[in-house]
Amino acid sequence: MPDRFANTPEPPYYAVIFTNQHSGEDGAAYGRMAEKMVELAATMPGFLGVETTRDADGLGITVSYWESEESIANWKANSEHQFAQEKGKSNWYDHYELRVAKVERAYSGPEGR
Amino acid sequence: MPDRFANTPEPPYYAVIFTNQHSGEDGAAYGRMAEKMVELAATMPGFLGVETTRDADGLGITVSYWESEESIANWKANSEHQFAQEKGKSNWYDHYELRVAKVERAYSGPEGR
Repeated sequence: MPDRFANTPEPPYYAVIFTNQHSGEDGAAYGRMAEKMVELAATMPGFLGVETTRDADGLGITVSYWESEESIANWKANSEHQFAQEKGKSNWYDHYELRVAKVERAYSGPEGR
Repeated sequence: MPDRFANTPEPPYYAVIFTNQHSGEDGAAYGRMAEKMVELAATMPGFLGVETTRDADGLGITVSYWESEESIANWKANSEHQFAQEKGKSNWYDHYELRVAKVERAYSGPEGR
């Protein structure tokens, strides 16, 4: 599996789908924060992996995967993550949608390669 | 809400999370197919919206939202979508992960803007 994919276990597990439009403000600082947040998430109990991409117009989708609702709540309560959320609210995002979902089925492909 | 975000209703509803590494082959044809697939999805019963982005390295994440498992099954069974899946298996993707998830909670932001 290429390393930008999350090597998740058999479902069920949880996904946090974060779709965001970057404002274009303070790009270097945002990049450092985003990297730090991923590093921190990886140390959290119940973290299963993350997939993230962003196009040239600044539309990003980051999906993080978690063992349980509890592990998501723990991550949310983490102070550094809180900080990033506050900063995001004030400066970094023109708009975002965050959805918490329970993954029920999963498939990989392409088959036969 | 900016138009690249899906204007989804209150949960619960379903998300199909499609993370894919484009092979770089046949880019123009792929673009046409992807556009056609989104147009077609929008005509399907139970379709709620789609969010899609891809970075310069070809890593794409597309999340489509659906009212029910049944609406996802109907979309999957659609012949043109099937065609795109086959084509994807043979040429367009180096790797993909497809996950079907039930959205339980959702938030928009940033607040206070």
